[in-house]
Amino acid sequence: MTENPGELFCPLEFRYGRPEVRALFSRELRLRRALRVEAALAEAEAELGIIPPHAAQAIAAAAAGPDVTLAEVDRLEAEIRHDVMAIVRALGAQSGVGAPWVHYGATSADITDTALALEFQDAVRILRGDLTELAQTLTDLAHKYRGTPEVGRTHGQYAVPISFGYKMAVSAAEVLRHRKRLDELAPRLCVGKMAGAVGTGAGFGPKSFEIESAVMRRLGLRADEAPTQIVGRDRIAEFTGWLALVASTAERLATEVRNLQRSEIAEVQEPFDERRQVGSSTMAQKRNPVVSENVTSLARLIRAFALPPLENMALWHERDLANTANERIVLPHSIVLTDDILRKLIDVHTGLKVDAERMASNLSQSGGSVMVENLMLALTAKGVPRSEAHEFLRTMSRGETGGGSLAARAKSDPTLQKYFTGAELDQLLDPAAYVQAAAAKTDRVVEALRRELAA
Amino acid sequence: MTENPGELFCPLEFRYGRPEVRALFSRELRLRRALRVEAALAEAEAELGIIPPHAAQAIAAAAAGPDVTLAEVDRLEAEIRHDVMAIVRALGAQSGVGAPWVHYGATSADITDTALALEFQDAVRILRGDLTELAQTLTDLAHKYRGTPEVGRTHGQYAVPISFGYKMAVSAAEVLRHRKRLDELAPRLCVGKMAGAVGTGAGFGPKSFEIESAVMRRLGLRADEAPTQIVGRDRIAEFTGWLALVASTAERLATEVRNLQRSEIAEVQEPFDERRQVGSSTMAQKRNPVVSENVTSLARLIRAFALPPLENMALWHERDLANTANERIVLPHSIVLTDDILRKLIDVHTGLKVDAERMASNLSQSGGSVMVENLMLALTAKGVPRSEAHEFLRTMSRGETGGGSLAARAKSDPTLQKYFTGAELDQLLDPAAYVQAAAAKTDRVVEALRRELAA
Amino acid sequence: MTENPGELFCPLEFRYGRPEVRALFSRELRLRRALRVEAALAEAEAELGIIPPHAAQAIAAAAAGPDVTLAEVDRLEAEIRHDVMAIVRALGAQSGVGAPWVHYGATSADITDTALALEFQDAVRILRGDLTELAQTLTDLAHKYRGTPEVGRTHGQYAVPISFGYKMAVSAAEVLRHRKRLDELAPRLCVGKMAGAVGTGAGFGPKSFEIESAVMRRLGLRADEAPTQIVGRDRIAEFTGWLALVASTAERLATEVRNLQRSEIAEVQEPFDERRQVGSSTMAQKRNPVVSENVTSLARLIRAFALPPLENMALWHERDLANTANERIVLPHSIVLTDDILRKLIDVHTGLKVDAERMASNLSQSGGSVMVENLMLALTAKGVPRSEAHEFLRTMSRGETGGGSLAARAKSDPTLQKYFTGAELDQLLDPAAYVQAAAAKTDRVVEALRRELAA
Amino acid sequence: MTENPGELFCPLEFRYGRPEVRALFSRELRLRRALRVEAALAEAEAELGIIPPHAAQAIAAAAAGPDVTLAEVDRLEAEIRHDVMAIVRALGAQSGVGAPWVHYGATSADITDTALALEFQDAVRILRGDLTELAQTLTDLAHKYRGTPEVGRTHGQYAVPISFGYKMAVSAAEVLRHRKRLDELAPRLCVGKMAGAVGTGAGFGPKSFEIESAVMRRLGLRADEAPTQIVGRDRIAEFTGWLALVASTAERLATEVRNLQRSEIAEVQEPFDERRQVGSSTMAQKRNPVVSENVTSLARLIRAFALPPLENMALWHERDLANTANERIVLPHSIVLTDDILRKLIDVHTGLKVDAERMASNLSQSGGSVMVENLMLALTAKGVPRSEAHEFLRTMSRGETGGGSLAARAKSDPTLQKYFTGAELDQLLDPAAYVQAAAAKTDRVVEALRRELAA
Repeated sequence: MTENPGELFCPLEFRYGRPEVRALFSRELRLRRALRVEAALAEAEAELGIIPPHAAQAIAAAAAGPDVTLAEVDRLEAEIRHDVMAIVRALGAQSGVGAPWVHYGATSADITDTALALEFQDAVRILRGDLTELAQTLTDLAHKYRGTPEVGRTHGQYAVPISFGYKMAVSAAEVLRHRKRLDELAPRLCVGKMAGAVGTGAGFGPKSFEIESAVMRRLGLRADEAPTQIVGRDRIAEFTGWLALVASTAERLATEVRNLQRSEIAEVQEPFDERRQVGSSTMAQKRNPVVSENVTSLARLIRAFALPPLENMALWHERDLANTANERIVLPHSIVLTDDILRKLIDVHTGLKVDAERMASNLSQSGGSVMVENLMLALTAKGVPRSEAHEFLRTMSRGETGGGSLAARAKSDPTLQKYFTGAELDQLLDPAAYVQAAAAKTDRVVEALRRELAA
Repeated sequence: MTENPGELFCPLEFRYGRPEVRALFSRELRLRRALRVEAALAEAEAELGIIPPHAAQAIAAAAAGPDVTLAEVDRLEAEIRHDVMAIVRALGAQSGVGAPWVHYGATSADITDTALALEFQDAVRILRGDLTELAQTLTDLAHKYRGTPEVGRTHGQYAVPISFGYKMAVSAAEVLRHRKRLDELAPRLCVGKMAGAVGTGAGFGPKSFEIESAVMRRLGLRADEAPTQIVGRDRIAEFTGWLALVASTAERLATEVRNLQRSEIAEVQEPFDERRQVGSSTMAQKRNPVVSENVTSLARLIRAFALPPLENMALWHERDLANTANERIVLPHSIVLTDDILRKLIDVHTGLKVDAERMASNLSQSGGSVMVENLMLALTAKGVPRSEAHEFLRTMSRGETGGGSLAARAKSDPTLQKYFTGAELDQLLDPAAYVQAAAAKTDRVVEALRRELAA
Repeated sequence: MTENPGELFCPLEFRYGRPEVRALFSRELRLRRALRVEAALAEAEAELGIIPPHAAQAIAAAAAGPDVTLAEVDRLEAEIRHDVMAIVRALGAQSGVGAPWVHYGATSADITDTALALEFQDAVRILRGDLTELAQTLTDLAHKYRGTPEVGRTHGQYAVPISFGYKMAVSAAEVLRHRKRLDELAPRLCVGKMAGAVGTGAGFGPKSFEIESAVMRRLGLRADEAPTQIVGRDRIAEFTGWLALVASTAERLATEVRNLQRSEIAEVQEPFDERRQVGSSTMAQKRNPVVSENVTSLARLIRAFALPPLENMALWHERDLANTANERIVLPHSIVLTDDILRKLIDVHTGLKVDAERMASNLSQSGGSVMVENLMLALTAKGVPRSEAHEFLRTMSRGETGGGSLAARAKSDPTLQKYFTGAELDQLLDPAAYVQAAAAKTDRVVEALRRELAA
Repeated sequence: MTENPGELFCPLEFRYGRPEVRALFSRELRLRRALRVEAALAEAEAELGIIPPHAAQAIAAAAAGPDVTLAEVDRLEAEIRHDVMAIVRALGAQSGVGAPWVHYGATSADITDTALALEFQDAVRILRGDLTELAQTLTDLAHKYRGTPEVGRTHGQYAVPISFGYKMAVSAAEVLRHRKRLDELAPRLCVGKMAGAVGTGAGFGPKSFEIESAVMRRLGLRADEAPTQIVGRDRIAEFTGWLALVASTAERLATEVRNLQRSEIAEVQEPFDERRQVGSSTMAQKRNPVVSENVTSLARLIRAFALPPLENMALWHERDLANTANERIVLPHSIVLTDDILRKLIDVHTGLKVDAERMASNLSQSGGSVMVENLMLALTAKGVPRSEAHEFLRTMSRGETGGGSLAARAKSDPTLQKYFTGAELDQLLDPAAYVQAAAAKTDRVVEALRRELAA
């Protein structure tokens, strides 16, 4: 264990993650949570007449006070090599008359899994807040740029016109779907247990159900309806799987910024401190989308963290220990990193430089090719069979019917002139109608998003 | 493409998976679903006055009839190398007056993603049925063996007594949690789109929203509220992530059977055709839990299939094609295999041979060590500090205080004799109370499960 | 099992993969390989005087002939539910005097794992050929475009000039590293066993080592030095891990093509059948990099297939069956798909349209910003401290010191004029030197690659 | 950044990993390594006449001395948000006359990737040592227990006799295969680069190749033959894939201990401090295989860490930054954890309690069923067709031909008595021959292992 910053090892101690979120998973707070559960247990048992009230009071006071220290718990654990027993002994030593009643009837996992549920409560609250703020930011961008013309791209190729606002609306809707999923899974995740060595509550005697209910009520949790020694690990795997989903959306948003910021596209730029920030140690001109790249990188790791919890589900019989060590690493790391990348995306989108002029200029550079779909639909409406219209335009757009941009060729094409006047062709080649459709759809989506955000 | 069974390659064609489920994803049914979507589109456009009613009728008739054949579509695709255009041309060729209006305003992904949503409808229905049946089977076992004593095991070591029924109750509850998750995600999964090249509906003209609604209504689907060229891939990654969760539970159940069937434990045995089945080509005596092993093996693969859909989420701009090829493999394989292992688990548990005598004999072999917790709690109730009681029993159970089984040593131990009479010690060493607690908890869980199953 | 193409289910039966590679893993060839192993065993045992020579001859003849049919084996397996015993019985029925000696001393896994090693021999041969051909193609491109100027891009942003040939050289070197890895792992992968039920050879009697050696010699394999019932699964996990590495390189090459083919970049284009191929059902102008996108998609799946073999390594004791079912799917699918994407990359690069003019024009559009590094180095050589030079150019490239392109501003900048003449500045802003360096490095790399390819 | 142990977050700071290995990846040592590379660069450039010798001396002295502090680098990075530039500036500030020549011609990645190669040198050395020691320990166990009879188990079921030594020999061979793989990949992994912004060396001028060679020679590394801005990421993905392989073997070994330590099997026990260690907070009798369970748990995480490096391979063009952040976490964590679990396995096997008596008693409990294979082979040798012998014994072992153990039934079976005398039957049912075969094979394997270990 280190006290020297130079000896630190894990980049989450000093480079990634918000301090206030990291603090939630610090050794100190983990100990405090375990003590809070021991206190709730003692109080519940006193309430039900199982242990003496003054014992519970003494335990609760010791658990809430400063005298059970991490240092003492560490010392005990080094000796007996059992983390919860170390806490129980340290708490007992400070509990006076309560000493014999500390941890009464409980198994270690009653404490650790219930304390973990308290951590999940915090994680859910924080991540839900992040998603809400990100969705709000994206919705505002959607509204602001509802009709800002931009080239829609599929396969990395120009497709048909779109608006930048619609792009943002798509992302906002995706982010809110994650919030919905979180709301659904949270009640399954934030569950504790007080049910003894194999989940039947036998060690607590005939009032085991009442004890468990009373403990959970005090902590604001639900109880696992049928645990083994531990709470069902499907709950955790569901959560880390959800984090992987969220991370993948984060990667999508970051990839969009990185692509739109390419030198050749340059339609947006993530915030950059022009005065001081250095883009490259050797290429002084660079303005790299480093925050979005960082989000992409961490998203991949969060995704990987979803695997061990799935493998942890198939524990042997009433439990084996193969979940513990990796959960201790996976859970705090993936929660802190998910919060981290969501905050970064909020920052990136809040400060995003949107270059509407460049969007317009890129669109006009397409030389009309993005309006081929429109021409085809118009030809079909004139009675040309769809496949014939498609084939005609496919050939024309390959440049086999003359030089110049597609727009120029279209206007002078005798076949098209048969069906359309010059003015009609101008209109068919004008992206305005497409952008108007995008704006209208954006409005519908934004309205729905705002309703959901306000709910 | 092969017609010779000896040339078949993928074990899902001949070894794994139920034929009726596999059939849902056959080439033929995939074509029929795409045609059903094209028909719904034409009918919706006719309903809204966009294309002539008789055109829609002709298209719908051709789509429902036998004349658009897979062979013809294959021939066209080989030529133009575009799967949906091949269907459109084949359908057009059979649609007479409808020909010019086939696929009007739509982009390929409108058809493929909506057809995919129809597949998901089927998948959800089948898998929900599997989960219900498995949960029912496990609940029945839980009830039947509610009070059948068995050793509870943690870390692979004897812990405290449990009942076999409670074990089953734990599993039943886990299975029903998956059904709940499915009910929550299904509305997000079964969504189509009819919104054109970049999701704004521009190609459909001013009535695009009405068209999309009308198509979805006809197909019993919801529309993606804000698609790109395709439906948001978070929906699919959520689903395959859910399949991975289900597979991991399946692995847990299968691992339990495999472990309880070990030669040294022998408490359960999966069904085995004693008359004919061969356990080993060389060890004729073997009765291997091959079905449960098979479930374990396929579960690992289903879990792996959850990864590509996560990576597919970060598509570029309004979509790239990097999702398509792996989805074509991942989705049918993982759905068919999940159904397969759930059916196998239903069979294994329906025909499970439960050896209650062996369970009792294993429990008695523990020589009382499984009752140490009970002794400790009784000592604590007598006023011995918990840590002192724990240390006393830890030492005694290590055999440092005399020979014989722990029960024998306990009865002759002077310290224990100070606190308990011989009769009291007999009772403290009797697993009955623990098993009774397990039975009572099983009853509570079973009652809740039955309520949910009946809902 | 289906004989109707419309009932086919797995896209590898009809859409992906080369038929000749797929055939290697067909049911028929798998049976033939198992029979080849049974024949080798009988012959080895006869050679060592363990079974009668005429028995071995009869077995070998039956194994090589057409009378042991897949249909008969299927019929037997359906009855006894044991795949190898079904083969043994079917072979016995055709072996006349050899019947009692079929499979003598062997356990099923001796046959299946040795037959699997024969499959790996084929897979190694095919994939090695693919890598060689791809490396050759890339090396030729490297040489051809050794000095073709192109913008180097980091973070998606213009960095400094490069040559297109160097890009290809980087990829060729990466591909050849994979071939080297394959050459190293192949001897570990292509190992069989003939060592009985738990790997000790006990069932074969005192000559077990000689028997195993003789069998392997006949089949051109090595024997696992210390198997359990089966060959160590680390060998397979190493191989599928290697496939995942190759797939990730394939994704890199495909991503490069997709990015360079973007509408805004347009420096390369993958082969496209202009006359017939359809890019989009609705946007007739599209030329999408669909092959490269397809490679990307399948690469993700190949990567996922690497996971189950890793989990399969921790089998219980002398083996459990949890590897079998997923290996049956993972191995053929991932081998066939890896071959498939390597062939596609060979095709894409063989027919790649390289637009050197567009490369030059993109480079010139950078307005000199790609030469900032060069200016900085020149300033440092004049004695300006590196950090001062960097800061000066960082500020200047941010456009704070005047209008116009960076080249224009540089030429009129008083600070720079202090250090350089106009001609010197022109030279410093000319990418030629950078491209020359790229060409020189490409030559070195190409020479080394050609040496290795010729080896 | 924290200096308070209670604020620590990552369990690798205080719970898992050897301090001396963790130290290799501390912030302080990472800085020192980067400075070492900057020094090597300056010295190489002086050697080649590119920068003044006294400048190089000044830089090297500053790099080796204590004046460039982590605190100062942190301060600078907070300001300019570029990690390598912060080091360059801090080093420049301490380099006096060398200041203008620090980092001359180099790009950030030249420093970071070369420094990373130095880390890999350390990692390879440490992990190779671990594997050697573990293989040695297992080989010693193999030799010691070469003929100790034990039941071989397949599918969790009794199969045929084996020796405990052979089990260990299998594991030792697997461990040494990993060492072989490491020896093969290390030269590909420990490569640096000094080739500038896009890998062509342009920034270093005409002597770029010589500079790179000279730097690598000084550091004991090879140069990447064809890098982009960074060293090819296939090298890293190969390494983390190898770590995943090693971890999976670790899981296999740990699973074997956990299974053999089961209450019902009890053939081995991992070291346990009987005097002080607490097995359970509530079940004082427990001796859980917690170290082996811990290894299992961490192995799953190491496996997951292999995924991001694979995704990192497909970087865009001459590199994007999406590899950096996850590599910063994945590499140190997975190296430290792999060392950690290998050390734990060394400890577990060094102190393993092997209970040969229990092994013998478990074997005898099988009642002869493990000798069925032997009977079958003997019958075949007497001329009974194999399938008939198999069927006869399959039926008999199912207990359909009388009561008692299989051995008892066999001795009184009229069919068997036709072929064998009582003495012959006794011998056929005696596991000695099987165990002898296991011992002989163990000797062969041990001899080969010792040869390789001594090499």
